[in-house]
Amino acid sequence: MAEALFFPKEDVAKLEPYLPAIDATLLVGQKPFVTLTFATSLDSSLSLAPGVRTALSGPQSKAMTHYLRSRHDAICVGVGTAVADDPGLNCRIADDTDGAASVSAHQPRPIVIDPHDRWPLAHESRVLATARRGQGLAPYIVTAVQQPDAAKQKLLESHGGKYIILSTVHGSAATATAPPEPSDRFRWDDVLDSVASHGLRSIMIEGGGNIINTLLEPTNTHLVRSVIVTIAPVWLGRGGVMVSPNRVHGADNRAVPAARLADVKWQQLGEDVVLCGRFNR
Amino acid sequence: MAEALFFPKEDVAKLEPYLPAIDATLLVGQKPFVTLTFATSLDSSLSLAPGVRTALSGPQSKAMTHYLRSRHDAICVGVGTAVADDPGLNCRIADDTDGAASVSAHQPRPIVIDPHDRWPLAHESRVLATARRGQGLAPYIVTAVQQPDAAKQKLLESHGGKYIILSTVHGSAATATAPPEPSDRFRWDDVLDSVASHGLRSIMIEGGGNIINTLLEPTNTHLVRSVIVTIAPVWLGRGGVMVSPNRVHGADNRAVPAARLADVKWQQLGEDVVLCGRFNR
Repeated sequence: MAEALFFPKEDVAKLEPYLPAIDATLLVGQKPFVTLTFATSLDSSLSLAPGVRTALSGPQSKAMTHYLRSRHDAICVGVGTAVADDPGLNCRIADDTDGAASVSAHQPRPIVIDPHDRWPLAHESRVLATARRGQGLAPYIVTAVQQPDAAKQKLLESHGGKYIILSTVHGSAATATAPPEPSDRFRWDDVLDSVASHGLRSIMIEGGGNIINTLLEPTNTHLVRSVIVTIAPVWLGRGGVMVSPNRVHGADNRAVPAARLADVKWQQLGEDVVLCGRFNR
Repeated sequence: MAEALFFPKEDVAKLEPYLPAIDATLLVGQKPFVTLTFATSLDSSLSLAPGVRTALSGPQSKAMTHYLRSRHDAICVGVGTAVADDPGLNCRIADDTDGAASVSAHQPRPIVIDPHDRWPLAHESRVLATARRGQGLAPYIVTAVQQPDAAKQKLLESHGGKYIILSTVHGSAATATAPPEPSDRFRWDDVLDSVASHGLRSIMIEGGGNIINTLLEPTNTHLVRSVIVTIAPVWLGRGGVMVSPNRVHGADNRAVPAARLADVKWQQLGEDVVLCGRFNR
């Protein structure tokens, strides 16, 4: 079993302005507090290639990630990450209220974005094994498939998880012979409304590349309240899974910067740096 | 005329471990101290597109760049940058020895890497106008063209500059009817030996993308003594001029990180961060 991780109080204090309030209440119709967080190389790659786990950030950054999870009601990854990493999606931060190295009592709800219901979730999947040990929660899977796999649904529900069925943005129009083909993308507005409707007041969106890049688009940045990026002092080289949003053009059709952060704070953590900021509106 | 820039003493102290010694001597056969320095977006772009000047870093970072220039005998850019920016390639840091805002007396020698002698250097070029005002030095142009343009050569030499003629790495072999075609690349070993032979003890290599990416390759990182990267809290979006070296494969043919820094120090400067480090050997 994985050890509890410690994240020092002085580092917590530096992050505090960028975190959801502990006693936040969510009013009807409000969106959850969204924190976008991930770790990249200097050349903005999350990993060497899709599905290749790449150790980027150091142990302090890992402890930070788990501390951040302890401060959110939900954590969110795309199905690509779920398939590639078989992640535990729990919080392993040490609970400092009792001084012992016991793992945090608070666990965030994992939300997995899986439009086509392709995650091969099984009894052995780490997220479910973790839930059975009482060290994490079973996931909510957001899918566009109207009738998800029955066996998976039963497995999920027996662990306290569930499917959330939403429509994707239409990728191709209906024809005389075929219904409209759903795209791979949900509207983040819809996803976040659904998250809020489950009483989840805050969500930490962790990856992978596609998920992050859509949130960096001008139509979505207003949904994000905080951005926390860890950068490791390494260049992975061309061909990695990159964080870089689609090109944005200004009024005169010239390319302009896609997204800019304000209220910025950079802090060294081990050999890495942690950037906290908010989108410039 | 551009104003003198100030770079605070406390910031200088933080950079000092990564800079060449002021009283350095260069022994015969030694290479100059090489500092690789540039500014990127979070998605590792130098600019929105080739030839498009993109304001990335803030005023403090600009002052830092000019301070760094004051600490090097030479500064180096590729011809792409020289063509796109028409840069002054001088040092505008305030000389703090007399307390007034006069520009530094020390000026670095500009070295422009131009294999095919395509830089349209003219009397009006900013680097020459700056040299005529006594606020900078005329460039040394490193080219593979055996007989560079005569008018440019005369212009260059009348300002105190010169051509340095080196062989490039052969890109294509000679055939019965054609001589070998020079590639676009010099060996950095040759360039640095030539720089040293001109009594230049240190060189700050500033860009652009091609120049930087070749120095991040495993065959060249041993030539670099310090790396100083400024990162601005902005994503430019896909399609920019990226700093990212070619993919590197390990013994088992799997991709491995291309380059890693050690002895790392991250420092916030305005809204940007400055990363100082050395290549991990």
